Order: sequence, then C-alpha cells, then structure tokens
Amino acid sequence: MAKQTEVNPVPGIRLGHAASGNRGWDDLALIEIAADSNIAAVFTKNEFAAAPVAVARAHLQQPQRGKRYCLINAGNANAATGEQGHQDCLELCRQLAERIDCQITAILPFSTGIIGQRLPLGQLGSTLPAAVASLDDGNWEAAATAITTTDRFNKTATSQWQDAGHGTTTASGMAKGAGMICPNMATMLAFIACDSALDQEVLNHMLTAAVADSFNRICVDGDTSTNDAVVLMATGTRPTRDNSQELIENCQRHITQLCRKLAYDIVRDGEGASKVIEVHVHGAANNGECQLIARTIATSPLVKTAFFGCDPNWGRILAAIGRSGVTGLEIGKLHISINKKPMVTAGMADPGFDQDTMAREMRDCAELKLEIELGRGTASDYIVTCDLGHDYVNLNSDYSS
Amino acid sequence: MAKQTEVNPVPGIRLGHAASGNRGWDDLALIEIAADSNIAAVFTKNEFAAAPVAVARAHLQQPQRGKRYCLINAGNANAATGEQGHQDCLELCRQLAERIDCQITAILPFSTGIIGQRLPLGQLGSTLPAAVASLDDGNWEAAATAITTTDRFNKTATSQWQDAGHGTTTASGMAKGAGMICPNMATMLAFIACDSALDQEVLNHMLTAAVADSFNRICVDGDTSTNDAVVLMATGTRPTRDNSQELIENCQRHITQLCRKLAYDIVRDGEGASKVIEVHVHGAANNGECQLIARTIATSPLVKTAFFGCDPNWGRILAAIGRSGVTGLEIGKLHISINKKPMVTAGMADPGFDQDTMAREMRDCAELKLEIELGRGTASDYIVTCDLGHDYVNLNSDYSS
Repeated sequence: MAKQTEVNPVPGIRLGHAASGNRGWDDLALIEIAADSNIAAVFTKNEFAAAPVAVARAHLQQPQRGKRYCLINAGNANAATGEQGHQDCLELCRQLAERIDCQITAILPFSTGIIGQRLPLGQLGSTLPAAVASLDDGNWEAAATAITTTDRFNKTATSQWQDAGHGTTTASGMAKGAGMICPNMATMLAFIACDSALDQEVLNHMLTAAVADSFNRICVDGDTSTNDAVVLMATGTRPTRDNSQELIENCQRHITQLCRKLAYDIVRDGEGASKVIEVHVHGAANNGECQLIARTIATSPLVKTAFFGCDPNWGRILAAIGRSGVTGLEIGKLHISINKKPMVTAGMADPGFDQDTMAREMRDCAELKLEIELGRGTASDYIVTCDLGHDYVNLNSDYSS
Repeated sequence: MAKQTEVNPVPGIRLGHAASGNRGWDDLALIEIAADSNIAAVFTKNEFAAAPVAVARAHLQQPQRGKRYCLINAGNANAATGEQGHQDCLELCRQLAERIDCQITAILPFSTGIIGQRLPLGQLGSTLPAAVASLDDGNWEAAATAITTTDRFNKTATSQWQDAGHGTTTASGMAKGAGMICPNMATMLAFIACDSALDQEVLNHMLTAAVADSFNRICVDGDTSTNDAVVLMATGTRPTRDNSQELIENCQRHITQLCRKLAYDIVRDGEGASKVIEVHVHGAANNGECQLIARTIATSPLVKTAFFGCDPNWGRILAAIGRSGVTGLEIGKLHISINKKPMVTAGMADPGFDQDTMAREMRDCAELKLEIELGRGTASDYIVTCDLGHDYVNLNSDYSS
C-alpha cells in the first residue's frame, strides 16, 4: 500500500491497528475519540444492513461522558448472519469495553468483508490487546491499511486551515472501498475527524451536506452495500468554540473537500476502471431530474463499455437519457459534449463532431467530463462514475470467493 | 442465418424483402396486410422516439379501408435526425404509396439500426419495387432475415390451433433484437399476425397482455431503445367471427406463447450471454415489489458477472434485494434458491449449501431459475435476463461503429 500523503494527527484522536492472522496484513483498526467529542454518522440504506450497523446505530444514540471508540474489522462483514451475528458483534464490543474499562455503548462497531460468514470472534477478540496497545495519534495510514479489503491503495486525506483569531484547525480522514469490484465485500467505510468544537446538530448537518456532495455522488454500479457507513468526529480540543456561521461554513468547505477526495479515490480504485467520468446534467427543471438522468447514464452498461473502448457512441447516451424516467424532454433542446467538445447539438450529431478526434480525446484523458444540456430549466447537478472493462468481468466472475 | 422452424403462412398476410446494397444481405422488409384487418401496436416509451415511431403512430390512427403495409428498414434507425429525419421517413412512405397506389397513411414505417445518421433515402427508395414484387405469403423467414441487424439468428415463431366448430387458426411472427449487445442499434421490433377476426379493442387488449408477459419481461441491460415496436395484426380472413370469450382466451394464450418464444430468443441471442436466467420473486406484497426486486437483480452487473463465472455468490443477490427500493423487508424471512437448490434460508446461508455443487449446477445449465421468497405476501412475478461476460465488453467497447 503506497503512502499517498502525510496525514496530520487530529488532537483528541488516536488510532490503533493489529493483525488477527486471518490474512497477510492488519485487519483490525481502532479509533479512540476524546471525551466530550461529538460524533455524527450515516449508515447504509440497504434493507439488509449488517449486525454492526444496527449495533453502532444504537450505541451512538446512548449519551456518553468519557472516551468513545470505533472498532473496525476487515475481511468479514458480519452480514446475513442472523441473531448469532448480532450476538457476536455485541460480544466483541463487550470484550473491548472490558479491556478499556468503559461502557459497552461507548464502542461503535464496523465490519467489512465477506457476507454470510460468522465473525471469527476468537481471533478478533485475542487481537484487541494489540490494537489497544498500539493507539497513537500518528497512525492514520496504518489504520487506513487495516480497514482495506480489495483496495489497491490506501485512501486518506488531510487538511489544515486558519481562521482569523482561532488558530489552526486540522481535519483528517480515511476510507476503504474499491469502486465497482466488491460491493459484496460490504463495501464503503469512511472515518473523518477534526478538532473543531461543533455542536451535535451542526455536526450532523455538516456530515449530511458533505456526504451528499461526495460519497453519494459516486455511482459505480448502483450498489449500496449492507455495511456502508461514514463517521464524522469533532473532538473540540481547541480552546475556542466554533459557533460563528463563518467558522462553520469554512469547516464545512474543508470537510466536504476532504470527503470528495476520499470518494474520488474510491472510484479511481475500481479494478477494471480506466477512467473517472463526471456526468453533469444542466438545464433541468430540478435536481431530481439531473440525478435521475446522470445515474441512468452512469449505470448503463452500454455507456460504460463504450467509455472503456474510447468509443464516442453518443447514441447510447441519448437513448439512456430518453429512458431515464424524466418525461416531457424535447430532443431539439438536447446538447451532449465531452470535455466541452460538442457531440450532439439540438438533438442531432453536431456538424463539427469527428468520431476519431473524440476517440483520441477519450483515450488521452483519464478523467472525462460528460455534459448534458436539457434546455428546460436552470437546475444543474452531477455524479462521478467510471467505465466498465474486462478486468471488471474478470474480477467479478472469478469463482474463487 | 439458420432456419429455426417452418413458419406457417397467415391468410391475408404477404411479405416482401429486398436488398438496398447497404450491406451484404436484405435490409428492407414489407408486410402487406389484407383490407379490413385490425392492427394493434405498442411503441417504445423512450422520450427520444425515432421519426418512424411518430409517423407509424400517427398513420395507425387514421381510418383505412384498403390494404395496409408495414415498411421496415434495417441498418439505419432514423433516430436523432431532427425534422429532416421526419421528412425522410414521410418521403419513403410517399414513394411506396405511389407505387402501390394507396394513401400514404396506409404505410406504417419502422426503422432499426445506427442512431444519428440520415436515412439513405435514395437507395431505399430504389429498392421498393423489388420489395413489392417479392410479396408472397411464404416469405416469413426471408423477411425475418431482412429486419435483423446484429442478430446471430432469425427469430420466428408460428402456431396453429383448432377451436371446435371454428376450424384452424394460424398465428405467425418475427422479431429482431439481440439481447444486450445493441440497444444503440435501436433494438427490438416484432410483427405478429393471425387470421382471427378480432375487434380492434379486443386486439389492443390482447397485444398489451401478450407484451406484458413476454417482451416486457426480458430485461437484459435495462435499455429501452428509441425504435422499439411490437405490432399485432388480425386479418379476419376466416369465415367465422371470433367474439366468444372462449375463442378470445384461446387466441390470447397462443399469441402470448408466440411472443414469449420470440422474446426468449432475443435474450438467448445476446452476444456474451452464456445463460438465460429466470428471476422469480415470491411472497411479495404486490407485483410491483416483485418487478422492482427482479429488475434490480437482473440489471446488477455484480450479479450478472457472477452468473457468467458460475459463482453462486448469494451475497450479491441479497445486497441487490436490500437496495431495490422495497422497504420493510425482513431478512429472517428471506430465502434464495437456484433450480430449487437452497442457498439462503431464513436470511442466512442454508446449512446444506455447498458452493462447489452449486457452481457445477450453474456450469451445467444454460437456463437457470433463480427464486427469491420474501415471506411478506402472496404476490409472485418474474423476469428473464442473461449473464454478462467478456463478449459483452468486447462487442460494446469495440470502437468501430
């Protein structure tokens, strides 16, 4: 795992990591969160959410006075494991609480990995002491490695900024998830911390807004896994309170940017993905229309394979828009371009469109900007996706799991 | 193109075929429909329906006394061609009407092929005389060949049945479309004729019901093209009227069966598709839930690639069900099986589930039956799909079109 960036420690946050022996690298990560921190979290909307999702959600609602902990295991999702899975999850929390001497509800459990297999409780339990012993504020990269499954590289991000009269704020984060290849690996987890002092309600709103503009805009194969979760922690260890609108907005901007960096890394890491594609829809009646059209394009196997082959096949894009479910579209107002080079103008092939030139453009750019203009309103929105190639088929059809 | 079956002539129907020289085989088909026939048609719901869809729809609504004609060209969809495309379509109809000496509104035009290129009007127009000259009631296979684009084989079906005191009824049909590979080829057309004497309203209802249970149940990559159309013709050349409920139901049964045969052939012809998979959802609150879940599974690239690899990866199926949009699912009531062999029982891996045995089952069967039990109601429904493999990527990423 190549180290991508030097991650700044966040005052009030220590991270641990350890190996249970289930695989060739660490598979347990621990995040210690200072007392009096606030924590916000969003979880998968999948109807079959895994056991740890239910437990973390419940524990998060319990008021806590002391330190809290995120306990993350990678390799086993503890999903579709029934009541036994629920008990296994609680038992692992109980063992950690006993060792640390805290309430069990201070532990927030997260799991990612294979669905439908029982948690290796014995191995994970005996690994807890090592994870606790390793707690250190400089462990972001090591913890980021420990939560990976099929990821090809660590996903971390960090940011520091100044507010006049308030000194330096630090935010750092880590995520796991590898684009299209492993939603059965119960896929995406992200943990972001800052040392701002933010009220719980402000923090909840900040996370929702950041996720809406980052993790919820990546659309790789339309899957939402059983274990997805994003956690935002504000330790509030800085001496001044951050209640002014200006400070909050500044913090929001940095947290959103940090989440976007992590989210793009997830798309970029999709095996078989050779391109990151931003799909922008303009001139819609509302954002819902933009999202519906952008997602129809981004999940169309025909569009995705065309991008893989650098084939500027705008007929497929046009057909996808037309079947998206948005009604009353006027083809005469439709424009489609890639990287500002027009392909469709007023519903027909642009007079200057040259297939070979556009194919070269698609071949030469690892990041492409597909833009759709509908000409029926003022709303614009976008999502980020990737292409679909042979490695996707190889990895996902390989009968080995 | 291998001849699959001997197609029975339908009294009142003659078919013509001809080559405009645009490709190595016939690309123009003509269907002559006897005077006083009734014709029902359903068209694509794509917002960007092609020019011939608008023209055929309008012409169909004009009352006609004499013969009518379906004029089908393959290779060019006349879609995304603007007002010029509309004029080109009308001009081709006008030329045929002049040659035959009928009203232009007696011509129903259909096109399939490349999107966004102007119709080769000159070539097609000069081919009309040959198409008219070849009209014959024995030409079903030849016409079926003429409407193909990337199809690997002709799709035809035929049926004859007896009703006591009413003699023999004949129904025959042809379709084009090749599963997943070419929705940019503006994909699916089907023409079915019978010699029953059916009222227009009965015929409309019969087509809607037949399509709902056949073409609308195939779900290959979620695309609905700009040119899709299904036409049902009833020539009424038999001496007796078919107004009794029993006769109508009998006819419905045969027409639906015939449409199902054609629809399955389209799935089977998907390049890259090695398997046909029936996805059945049982125990739902209503049919809408069944369809939502079945379609989510059938369009999941993760599920489709797992089927390609004969990987009984039920975690992907479970995750797809959980994200389908159906809410209030109880995982403890969920059962999943393939070919009646349980994989998931009460939300967990079935105790008897053996991965290798199931993988062999998937390898050995070209047609698989995936069944989902939700345990929350009595509704059942299904759709038919296929897997996703390397040939799909090859064909759809090939920069040649």
